Formats: sequence, C-alpha cells, structure tokens
Amino acid sequence: MAADQGEPIGIVAGGGTVPLHVAEAAIRAGRRPFIVAIDGEADPGIAAYPHEVLKWGQIGRMQAVFVEHGVKELVMIGNIRVRPDFSTFKLDLGALRVIPKVLALLANGDADLLSGVVALMGQLGFTVVGAHEVAPDLVANKGPLGRHTPDKGARRDIARAMRAARAIGVIDAGQGAVAVNGRVVAMEAAEGTDGMIDRVGALRAAGRLKWSGRAGVLAKCAKPQQDLRVDMPTIGPKTVTAAASAGLAGIAVEAGRVMIVDRREVIDLADRSGIFLVGEVTQPEPVA
Amino acid sequence: MAADQGEPIGIVAGGGTVPLHVAEAAIRAGRRPFIVAIDGEADPGIAAYPHEVLKWGQIGRMQAVFVEHGVKELVMIGNIRVRPDFSTFKLDLGALRVIPKVLALLANGDADLLSGVVALMGQLGFTVVGAHEVAPDLVANKGPLGRHTPDKGARRDIARAMRAARAIGVIDAGQGAVAVNGRVVAMEAAEGTDGMIDRVGALRAAGRLKWSGRAGVLAKCAKPQQDLRVDMPTIGPKTVTAAASAGLAGIAVEAGRVMIVDRREVIDLADRSGIFLVGEVTQPEPVA
Repeated sequence: MAADQGEPIGIVAGGGTVPLHVAEAAIRAGRRPFIVAIDGEADPGIAAYPHEVLKWGQIGRMQAVFVEHGVKELVMIGNIRVRPDFSTFKLDLGALRVIPKVLALLANGDADLLSGVVALMGQLGFTVVGAHEVAPDLVANKGPLGRHTPDKGARRDIARAMRAARAIGVIDAGQGAVAVNGRVVAMEAAEGTDGMIDRVGALRAAGRLKWSGRAGVLAKCAKPQQDLRVDMPTIGPKTVTAAASAGLAGIAVEAGRVMIVDRREVIDLADRSGIFLVGEVTQPEPVA
Repeated sequence: MAADQGEPIGIVAGGGTVPLHVAEAAIRAGRRPFIVAIDGEADPGIAAYPHEVLKWGQIGRMQAVFVEHGVKELVMIGNIRVRPDFSTFKLDLGALRVIPKVLALLANGDADLLSGVVALMGQLGFTVVGAHEVAPDLVANKGPLGRHTPDKGARRDIARAMRAARAIGVIDAGQGAVAVNGRVVAMEAAEGTDGMIDRVGALRAAGRLKWSGRAGVLAKCAKPQQDLRVDMPTIGPKTVTAAASAGLAGIAVEAGRVMIVDRREVIDLADRSGIFLVGEVTQPEPVA
C-alpha cells in the first residue's frame, strides 16, 4: 500500500529514525502518514514521506497543516534532545491562544508535560494515539522472536532481570535491568539502556564480572503507569549489538508494551549473534 | 583504653582498612581485639594490633588461635576480592573436619555462603556478631552528622533516592541510588557505590544531566533481609569525595544499618565540601 492511500495519520516527529519506522509501519497497516517534523530534531529521512518542518511554537501552523491533510489522529514519537529554548520560540497566532496553558504545563515535571501535551492536542481537535495502536507490528509479541531460545539458566535470569525492571518501573526510576547467573548486575536510570549494557561489558572486561561464553539477560519493560501513547520503551539494532558485545545470552522485553524498531534487522542481528530475543508477559506487582 | 584490656573480640579480616577501624572502635568500646588476617587480603595496618596471618583453609589453626586468646565473639569484616582458589588451599586438620560442609556452602549463592559461614563458626564454638554490635559508633545515627543540612529540595531527593534504594534492596539487587531534582538518575548494582556516583558525574559532565551548583542526593541503605553481622553497607571518605566531585548536595544513609568508616574524616570532608550527611530512619515496604 502506498503513502497516499488509507486513513490519514499525523506523526509529530522528534529526532532519530523511530518516526520513520512508525511511518513505514503505518503504511503497512493501511494508513496514510503525514509528518510534522520539529526543526532541528527530525531525521533527514522524513523527506521520503509527506511532511512539513516546523519550529517549536508554530502550534497554529501545525494545527492547520494537519487539518489540511485530513488528520484526526496523531502519533507523537522520537527523541526531543532538549527542552525548547523559549528565547528562540517562534510563536504563531495558534500558539498565542494556547501558550499560557503550555507554559503552565512546562512548569511541571516530565510526566505532567507529556499528559498535558496529549490534553492540549485534544483541545486542538486531535486524538493522540500510541504508535503501537497505529502499527501493532512495531510492538514485541509473546514468545521467541528469533531462532534462539533461552535455556533453563537464562529463564532464571529473565525472571530476575524482569523483576528488577518492574520494581524500578513501579517507582518511576527506570525500565531496564541486566541479570547474570541469577544476580542483578545493572539497573538503568539516566544512562539509558545502551549505557547500562555497555557498563556490564566494561565490568566484565575489567574482571569484576565473570562468566564464560554467553550468559545473562537484558530485560526491558514499560513502567506500570507509563503513557504508551507518548512514551513507549524501545529496543532496536543498537540494543542487540550492545547486548551481544557485552556477552549477554539474550534480551527479554515486555510483550505488547515495548517497541521493536526495525524488527527485521533486530531479529537478524540477534540470530547472527547467537542471542535470544523473547517477549514476556509480566504480572503487575503491588506498588511499593 | 589499650588493646590489651577488656573482653576479647576476634576479628576475621579481609582486605581494606575497615577491619582496622573496627579494631579501633572495639578498643574505644572497651574490647580487646585479636585479628586473624586472611593472607593476601589484609591491609598491612593490622600490624598495629595483636594478629596472626593465616591462609585460606587454615580453619583449625584459626580456631586454636582464637581459643588461645580467649575469643568467644567474632566480627568478620573487610573485602574478599575473589572466591578462594581451591587449588592453592592449605587445608589443616581442623579444616578437614569441616571442609565437606564448607564445600557444600560454597556451591550455593553468596547469601547462603555468608549465613553458612556464620553457622560454621557457631559449630567451632564462636558467636559471629556485627561490627555495629561491638562498636556502635561505627554506625550512622539519626539526623545530621555534619554541619550542613538538607533544604526542602534536598529532602525531596532524599525521599526519592531512599525509596529507590529500598526498592532495589527488597529485590536483592543493590543498596544505593542517586536522585537529582526529584528524579532517580542512578541505581547501584555490580558497579558499586563509587562506580554509580562517578557515572552521575560523567553524565553531568557530558551534559546529559544538568543542574547548577550542588544538587542531588546519594542514598544508601541495607537490604531488608541483609545479615548485618557479615555484610553491612558502608560509606567512607571515598564516598564523600566521589559525591562531592559529582556535584551532589548530600548523602543520606539508613540510620543504624550503614557503617561509616573513619567517621571523623568523613564528616570533616563533608563539612569542607559543603555537602550534608544525614542518617535517615526508613520504613519497611511490602516485599514486591
């Protein structure tokens, strides 16, 4: 199906290639993507899709562009490297109407900002949906995703790492953890998933963690309270490469709640590296 | 009080200077320390105290030495860098009597090993006690320990970081966490407390974490199930130096359950660096 057919879907694109994968997956799912890219953030690859580049603050123009292209549903996706610099804000008339509300939102923490932006889009007449709703094939399904499968020891590490990832998610601290031979050796916070995996590799290289062959599991899951419409945990080819380099045996992600960017390459890399990749259904735990 | 007076207390010393601080604190508390140092692990500073250096496996000799010096209570303290290499084990007759039990213990995980060693010492006629029982002034008390105190923002970070440290303790994954401006930015596992603090400093230096002046709190607490007799969380001068270098505003430790090694230097360093140091009473949370 081509990009000029199907029900329109708006994509507000931050940085990175994830928005491109969402656009592709939307097309596969029979939707017609239109991208509004944030100037200075978006990947040049958006040029392959109908799009317009706007600056922070051009909210009225964004609304007009989406209306013009028949967009009723929006996906907001991609990295925002920095909070917008208000001194360079280009405020249009549409922005002036909503700016007091936006400023009030920005004064709060991240979670409030994100849910506030969803509410703001609602005021402008758009429904914010999750990428997983537009393109279900972006999300991990249950069971093995590649050709390798976890053995008994790896299943124990999956359970340990998933439990740690859930526990830190419950307290809104992180999404990922690594367990090796039954022991949690790393938990993710501000350093990000790749930073955490690299640390495990460095501790092993320094002899502070020891195992032979491949062992250990990276687990990643969404926080129980996470709004998947605006903030979904993601793995991609870089995650697999990092896990393979660190000597891990595999990766477990929460089925239905973690996005796999570039699934074909991810599975191919996992298969060739000899590491497993599984989707796990996790049980909710009581909030501490 | 001198080292040749008071009720004897045995110290089985691994590496680092902590065993020396325990010996000093024991003398201050009116005890007479005798150190059995593990060859290749113990700090040369043990020479200042009555001691004997033994190799791994000289369990019969250890028993005889302690009996000879009237020791009934033992503190086991200090770092063990590596698990003993059985090929270099020097087994004495006392060891041969207990070695089947020791081997069975070593086949299990760390927690089992430690509690098993406590049971083994009991079989040999000794009671293992915690350093905090012998020398209460080694342990953090409640309230400010230096002259700086947390402000309102820092109190919020104490609560956030303590909550994260407790949550990862409940799942037996770690003991420490750092929160900055209301957000958990690092959690400790295999990298250790200093490694975690250094990471926060590196993320700040790389612009991935931003704050001006001093902000953020390192929290450290014992795991709920931790056997403080053989494995007590510790902070020392290096912890304070690392926290100060990373730009943190202060350190919070669980009162009564975290050891402060070299308290005078720790407090002096904190005071001079402009960071606070507080003992916090934490509430147990339901096990996840």
